[in-house]
Formats: sequence, structure tokens, C-alpha cells
Amino acid sequence: MPRAPIITLTTDFGLRDPFVGIVKGVILGICREALLVDLTHSVAAQDILEGRLALESAWHFFPEGSIHLAVVDPGVGSARRAIAMRAGGHYFVGPDNGLFTFALETQGWSAFGIEAPTYRLPAVSQTFHGRDIFAPAAAHLAAGVALERLGPPVLDPVRLPFPTARLEGDELVGGVIGMDCFGNLITSVTDADIDRLTSGGPVVVRLGSRDLGVLVTHYGEAEAGVPRPILGSSGRLEIFVRNGSASAVLGESRGAGVRLRRALRPR
Amino acid sequence: MPRAPIITLTTDFGLRDPFVGIVKGVILGICREALLVDLTHSVAAQDILEGRLALESAWHFFPEGSIHLAVVDPGVGSARRAIAMRAGGHYFVGPDNGLFTFALETQGWSAFGIEAPTYRLPAVSQTFHGRDIFAPAAAHLAAGVALERLGPPVLDPVRLPFPTARLEGDELVGGVIGMDCFGNLITSVTDADIDRLTSGGPVVVRLGSRDLGVLVTHYGEAEAGVPRPILGSSGRLEIFVRNGSASAVLGESRGAGVRLRRALRPR
Amino acid sequence: MPRAPIITLTTDFGLRDPFVGIVKGVILGICREALLVDLTHSVAAQDILEGRLALESAWHFFPEGSIHLAVVDPGVGSARRAIAMRAGGHYFVGPDNGLFTFALETQGWSAFGIEAPTYRLPAVSQTFHGRDIFAPAAAHLAAGVALERLGPPVLDPVRLPFPTARLEGDELVGGVIGMDCFGNLITSVTDADIDRLTSGGPVVVRLGSRDLGVLVTHYGEAEAGVPRPILGSSGRLEIFVRNGSASAVLGESRGAGVRLRRALRPR
Repeated sequence: MPRAPIITLTTDFGLRDPFVGIVKGVILGICREALLVDLTHSVAAQDILEGRLALESAWHFFPEGSIHLAVVDPGVGSARRAIAMRAGGHYFVGPDNGLFTFALETQGWSAFGIEAPTYRLPAVSQTFHGRDIFAPAAAHLAAGVALERLGPPVLDPVRLPFPTARLEGDELVGGVIGMDCFGNLITSVTDADIDRLTSGGPVVVRLGSRDLGVLVTHYGEAEAGVPRPILGSSGRLEIFVRNGSASAVLGESRGAGVRLRRALRPR
Repeated sequence: MPRAPIITLTTDFGLRDPFVGIVKGVILGICREALLVDLTHSVAAQDILEGRLALESAWHFFPEGSIHLAVVDPGVGSARRAIAMRAGGHYFVGPDNGLFTFALETQGWSAFGIEAPTYRLPAVSQTFHGRDIFAPAAAHLAAGVALERLGPPVLDPVRLPFPTARLEGDELVGGVIGMDCFGNLITSVTDADIDRLTSGGPVVVRLGSRDLGVLVTHYGEAEAGVPRPILGSSGRLEIFVRNGSASAVLGESRGAGVRLRRALRPR
Repeated sequence: MPRAPIITLTTDFGLRDPFVGIVKGVILGICREALLVDLTHSVAAQDILEGRLALESAWHFFPEGSIHLAVVDPGVGSARRAIAMRAGGHYFVGPDNGLFTFALETQGWSAFGIEAPTYRLPAVSQTFHGRDIFAPAAAHLAAGVALERLGPPVLDPVRLPFPTARLEGDELVGGVIGMDCFGNLITSVTDADIDRLTSGGPVVVRLGSRDLGVLVTHYGEAEAGVPRPILGSSGRLEIFVRNGSASAVLGESRGAGVRLRRALRPR
């Protein structure tokens, strides 16, 4: 017996209205065997970057072959394309607006427009493509339909420019790109970036003009109320306050600059 | 192998407490095969109309045979009946307080009181019938128990008076009946109502004394910050602000009046 | 065919970020057959007592053999142990910080440290043991791995001191230990405690210096706006306001004292 297909869901629909439930109803009507897993439905309304970060940090923890349905879709009803992709051994379904930029950085991706009427709902609204286009496409993939049958190849999926960290002399320069529900500030600086700093003393971090000291390795190392930097669980530099909110303590959010360098090397 | 039965859940229990999880535990203890799908648990506390609107907009997107468990139950512990219905090829389980009024508008519905002790938990509390009565009933239906075995027929389920739109001369008169999480105002005016307007020029909409212009067909047609009317994905007239909240911009909520008419016909 | 294993999830991760989804991805990668049920992810950040209360009120409504994964973990990355327990016919997996104190009050529990590298993710972070240690352990249990194989026995799991009610002369003295989303105040007084009051007249309740009158048996008995005591669905004394919030009306929260006694006996 083949294993049940997994479909994850990432949207800005919220949980107050039945939109997410409706999407699941459409999926189960097409593929009753699908295992549905919510990633988040609390992406800030139409914030493509936030949706992308959520999915980027989560997809590779799912088994190969999983289907990731993501709908953060300010262009719904306009001419933006609907796409389905295979990348890194997974599938991605949603609007072609840059949500899946990270998947385009894997080797050997392929993408197709979702255009075949067979794989959409009979009536497609102008306002709810999550229900009418994306859910059916994901469900048909889960039911075994080949990706290529959904529509014509898309060779130029939209890529969303993304703030990455860069070396400036001895310093690594990046910025805050998001915040989690604990108030931890998430930055554009990855552990791979930090490896590019010249070796030597411990890494020290500044946020704007504020010195945050050296990277700690677990939350317990920080003094109460004092913001400290750490390599977070998603492989990014984060700034946290132990048992508190770094965002509240620092008054900073997306866009604030961070700088990393080696402290004076012990010779 | 028969297909796994679907049970949807609509409540005002919220997600902060384990009430919804407890309901699911009871269901799975009776029918391990049930697929559980949350519609919403954020119905305003004891707001039967809001719960009804959520379920009414969602149920028909689920496969035939689905079981819809809904608990918005200000009368818990009082003499109000517990009912299970079959209507439109689906099942509905919950308090008999008007939550399912829309299902009573389908042909050939049948309803039964949930009274047989076999299909309730052994001890029934006065405060949590979702757990003690409704969850077991839904689970037993999912496990194949015939609806008729739950209890005696109910010929007069409670109907909740519902504001519908009416024609006044050349105008269609209705009102705001709810709001979604984007701040879109949902009205009592359906697309079928609009078809009743005499044909001719484009449909124009007023909210209270404010002119909202002609119906647009997708969100992208609206200017930023300007409230506009649209036929929403649930088949109702909605008022939205592109990338914003119509509710906040207009300062209106449930109860505000809307009027639709044809603009001067181009001859 | 064996029944699908159930894993419940109780965390303080919130639903805004994809943390819960990531945990589920890890579980499904190890045991695709697991049925995942959310109890709550809205435990106040690092509030072990709140997490314990949620799980304590819910676990026994799930079928025997269910696995309860709970992560409220202020000590993540420190030396606190990771444990997996069998108690009362169920399994419990999480940090050894007192979350499972209630399970230690059952007969014949056994607990083991989660130390075997085979049953963890290959790389264990310092900040996300829910993903790296607890999810894999729960999933391996669901897949049939014996509890004893996870690591060495733990004979002294951490117990969290818990405010219980006590008799003072003719009075039962307890306190508010939590609040639910309706604003109901949950107390440390159980129905078993109340049975210890000398028999006689009806039980009357005071909150601080405020007289709340006699216990009611269902919400409908209370006058609008007036806080009243009731035996709640979780077997604890609760204080509610009908169709309102007792917490808001009374301005009380965790820590407030309650006193119960028999009213003058009718002779």
C-alpha cells in the first residue's frame, strides 16, 4: 500500500473564518487519503515574504514527496499565474509571486502553470483561488496526477528579492527580516554566512547601535531581560530575551540592521 | 474499503483551552477512522448567527456524507434539544437552536433528537454537551450507526430568523450580517437576490448614506483605501478595501443597511 | 490491522509560526500512520502549570494507548532531562519539569530518559527539542518502539508543587489556578474535595471577600452579569458569569482565594 500523501498548508487566511476548512473540504473531496498539516494560517495579510519564511523554514522537515500548498496572494483575480513546482523532492503549489523563491535555488526544479480546467473547480471565482485552483491542484497531485498534466511549463517563475547578508571588510552585515511569536527577532544572517567570517575570536553582534555581545549557545546563558544573539533552530541568527520578548525590549522589527564580527583574536 | 468518514467541527470554544482536543479525543475513542477537519473555533461566544454563517458557507464544499458537528450553545444545560439531521446528503449534529436553519431549506431533510443513552457518554455534564452528547453522536454516525437510532424524530427544529434582502421598488435592500478576518463586510444580499434586480445598467451599491459605486469583479479593480462592493467567494455581496479593512475604514459592522439598484440605463 | 496510533500535542509554540507544523512533519516522517490531535498551542509562554492543567483535563478522554507530547520547556538547552512515561495506560513525552506531575499520581507509572541517539534527530539543537528530541521519541513510540529502548529508567521525575484545597474547620480553602477563554475562573477545588465537606445545607462559596452564593448546576441558573460558582466540566469548581466573563467582572485571576462551606443546616 502506498504511503498516504502529505499536504501542508500555509496561508494568510487566519483561523477566524472557515476559509481553511473549505480548502480542506475541497482537497478531501478529490483525495480522501491526503494527510493535511497546517504550517500556519497567521501570515500577515498578503505578506509574501513572511509566508515564504514560514514555508522555507519548515518544508525540509517533511518527508520527501510532500506537497506544500501556500496561498498568500495579493494578486488574486489579476493576471498573475498559478503554479505547481517540483523541487528538492517536494511539490509546491500556489500563486506565482515569489512565495517559492527558495525552492528555485535547488537543483533541477521544474514548474508548470495550473491551467487545465480538469484540475480546477468547475467555477473559478475572482477572489478565492485557494479554494478554486490551488486546493484542487494539490489534491490531484496527491491523488497521483503527474505534475506536467496541470498545464504548460513555466520557465521563469517569479523570484522575490530577499535581503541576504553580505561581507563588508571584516564585518557581516544583515538585517532583521521577521519576528516569531515569542518576540524573537529573526535575521537574514544564516549559519553558513557566519562561517564566512574570518576565523579567530568569538563572534560579537550589534543591532543598530546596540552591542549585544557574543553569540550564546542556549537560552539559559542569557541574563534576564538582556537581549542576546543566538543561532536559532531555523539556521538563522536570532535575537532573544530569555523568558521575554526581544522585539518589545528593543523596540525593533523588520528592517533593523545587524552587524557581526570576530572579537579581538587571542594571539 | 469504504472511504473514511469526515467530521467537521464548528464551535465557539476557541483554541486557547483543550476543549476542542477533548471533543476530538471522544470522537476518536468511538470512531478511530474519522477524518477531523476544523471549520472554525473562533465563533464569537454564543453567537448562533455567526456560527450558522460559517457552516452555511462551508458545508457544501465537503464530500457528500460528511458529518458537520457544530456547537454554539448558549442554552447548554437547559431544556433545549440536541439534534442530528440529514439534509442535502450531509449530516448535522448540535444543539437545536437554529444553527442549522439553512439545512432546513433543503428538500427532504429529517431530524432526530439525540436521546438514546447508548450514544452519549455515560456521564453527561450540565456544561459541556459538545463532549458528552454531540461528539459521541457524530462519532457513532461516522461509525455507521443509523441516524434514526439516536432518538425520536424532531419535526419542528428551531429556525433562526435571518435577515434576508428584499425588493423595494427598483431597489434591493439588505444589511451587513458579519465580517471576516480581513475586515470584509458580509451582507445578506446573495447573487440570486441581485439577479432579481431589473436588467439594465450596472449595479451600484450604497452602505448607509455612502455611495460605494458599481460592483467590481476582482479586488485589483479597487483603488487603495476606497471601500468597494464585490460578489464574494461565498455567494454574498461583500464590501472590501483592497489590502485593507473595510470594517475599519467605514466604521460599520453587523446591522448596517445596504441598498442596490441599477444605474441609469445606457440607451 | 492495528488501530492508528494517536499523538496529542500540547505546547506554548502558538499558531503564528510554523513550529507546530515542523514538529508534525518530523513525526510523520517517522510514523506516517499517526493521528495528530492538537490539544492547545496557546499555553502562556513557559507556563508549566498552565500546560499541565490543559493536559491533565484532557488526556483521559483519549483512548488507551494514546501518546501525549507536551512541550512547555523553559529549560531547553540546559541540563533538564527529556522523559517518556507510561502511566494510566497512556504515554507521555516531554521535558522533565513537572508537566506530567498528575500522571505520577497514577499506579504503576514508569519513566525513561530519552537518550538513545537512534530515537532523536541526527542533529539536536539547543533551542528546539520539541522538534529534535520529543517529536521523534513520540513518533517512534507510535511506530511500536518499546518505551524502555529510549534510554535509562528515571526513578525521580520532577514533580511540580500544585496548590490543592484543604479543610480548615468547617471550611474548604482553595484558590484560583487558571482561567479559560470564556473568562471562567478555574479553582484548585475538585468535586472530590467538596465531598469532604460535612453534609448538611447547600454549599456556598466566597471569592476573596465576595459572597458568590450557592453552587448552581447549570449556567442558565445564574442572573445576567452576576458571578456564580459551578462544578465545571473538568471536575473543578469554576466561577462564571452567564454569557460573560467572570475574570473581567471580578477583576481576579490566578492566586485569588476561594472558601466553601455548608450554609446553615435546615433542622
